[in-house]
Amino acid sequence: MTGITDTALIGIDWGTTALRAYRFGGDGAVVDRRASAHGILAVAGGGFDAVFEETVAGWPDCPVVISGMITSRQGWLELPYLMCPAPVGTLADALHRHRCESGRTVHFVTGLKVRDTAGVPDVMRGEETQILGAITVGATEPRLLVLPGTHSKWVLVKGDEVSGFSTFMTGEVFAVLKEHSILGRMTTGETRDQAAWRRGVAYGLDESSDHGGLLRRLFSARSLALFDELPRAGVASYLSGLLLGAEVREARHFFGARVSGGSVLLLGSAALCDLYAEALAFAGLSAERGPDDAAARGHWRIAAAADLLT
Amino acid sequence: MTGITDTALIGIDWGTTALRAYRFGGDGAVVDRRASAHGILAVAGGGFDAVFEETVAGWPDCPVVISGMITSRQGWLELPYLMCPAPVGTLADALHRHRCESGRTVHFVTGLKVRDTAGVPDVMRGEETQILGAITVGATEPRLLVLPGTHSKWVLVKGDEVSGFSTFMTGEVFAVLKEHSILGRMTTGETRDQAAWRRGVAYGLDESSDHGGLLRRLFSARSLALFDELPRAGVASYLSGLLLGAEVREARHFFGARVSGGSVLLLGSAALCDLYAEALAFAGLSAERGPDDAAARGHWRIAAAADLLT
Repeated sequence: MTGITDTALIGIDWGTTALRAYRFGGDGAVVDRRASAHGILAVAGGGFDAVFEETVAGWPDCPVVISGMITSRQGWLELPYLMCPAPVGTLADALHRHRCESGRTVHFVTGLKVRDTAGVPDVMRGEETQILGAITVGATEPRLLVLPGTHSKWVLVKGDEVSGFSTFMTGEVFAVLKEHSILGRMTTGETRDQAAWRRGVAYGLDESSDHGGLLRRLFSARSLALFDELPRAGVASYLSGLLLGAEVREARHFFGARVSGGSVLLLGSAALCDLYAEALAFAGLSAERGPDDAAARGHWRIAAAADLLT
Repeated sequence: MTGITDTALIGIDWGTTALRAYRFGGDGAVVDRRASAHGILAVAGGGFDAVFEETVAGWPDCPVVISGMITSRQGWLELPYLMCPAPVGTLADALHRHRCESGRTVHFVTGLKVRDTAGVPDVMRGEETQILGAITVGATEPRLLVLPGTHSKWVLVKGDEVSGFSTFMTGEVFAVLKEHSILGRMTTGETRDQAAWRRGVAYGLDESSDHGGLLRRLFSARSLALFDELPRAGVASYLSGLLLGAEVREARHFFGARVSGGSVLLLGSAALCDLYAEALAFAGLSAERGPDDAAARGHWRIAAAADLLT
């Protein structure tokens, strides 16, 4: 068993609704972990120092790296986004040193931004650390990563550099349509209908211009049920599949020319990653799951690049 | 003034939330009109006869044509949809005679359906009558009509025949995102921001694959506001424009090859038609508004084709 005095680093993934803290041994392995519901939304203004001290109580004084929405406008302090492409070294150089009320020093990882040719920005905070923790250093082929969620992120990585990314609002569009639209009101029951889901994925993925875009295809969830060609109990599953299929279709067009092949790396909960893997397989894309502790691995990698590990 | 004895026809446009009744003189002009909030949702099961009698009270016994959601599952009686292409004569032939409790006979117009190459159906009930009332009989060039609304309909008409159509859930997607998503929570105020709306339309319409599809573009409403590049008070207007631009882009791809040119005919409220006309102009498409009384004109035309006018 690793003694507490072996601690080389503390990493904290401090998000909107949750906080996860990791204590690392000298070899980079996570030797202790703590989690709480003290995401930034739950912490009153000015309360971040207290939550931090509570989180690391009893752990030795050692370098601390903190990533996530904690550096957003509603967080402990706001940091600007770094422009992509961003190699791991850039993130390490941009670590923001902050002296806590207790006198302890912490290092904040900042988020990333990118702009399309219309100048429209896209942003991430926290995912950059998970991505760096999940990728293979030294890989030369461009690789696609997907972080499923309310707003899923598709990320293009080259070597140890985040070249670009794109956010898809699929999860939130599904949630509001299911809860508040006529499509949700048509559905009965909450059971997942695998056949309906697969049918939705297929229709969402289909490239035929005869099927139109998403605003048209959405209506199929209603019209198929109207003709009893989709069971009412399966409308929500169908809609979920349709939106995920549309996301994969959009993303394939968006990143298509920039990725030669290889499997997509999925970072997130097992349930969501399984759904994405199945939808990607429909589209002829293979996928594999990244490590569970991607954020912790990222903390370690950024700390190493910043020479915080002694 | 036309006397009540001149009445040649009564037409009723009986929708989900409203009912509009028209009394026609012998020359086809509307000489009297009544409206109520007794849409089918407001009429208890079995109450349709009573609402009908109240609606036509004092009007002479003459042919009656009724169109709209009244023939849906939740309506007075359910009628099947006719498959497109559907010429006006087909709709007249399919009129469904029904004897009311009072002994009066009414004729129901049924709706239309179409299927794409994946077999997915699309449907309309009521719009077919408005369309027939708005088009020019004898025209030979294919023409696009748009009926804006919660679920807008784009319709391809050739001569007096509805060749095909497509439903876009744009209005409902906007409403649920504005009311229930993070995009709505970011917005402040209800004032329409014309500059933000136009910017949204432009981004929604843009054909650049660098901008991705709708699920990606939606996030721009958040990211632009995050960077103070879109005023918070303009987020809802921007989102409205973005979705409408995306609808026009989708529809142009969907119908593109089937329409050679000419202006789009808009049927609906002046406010919505103005928005659509402006978005269509952005896309290089000219538009004009159809007649206000399109449904009534359709009742007359169908009645004439069915030899109900003596």
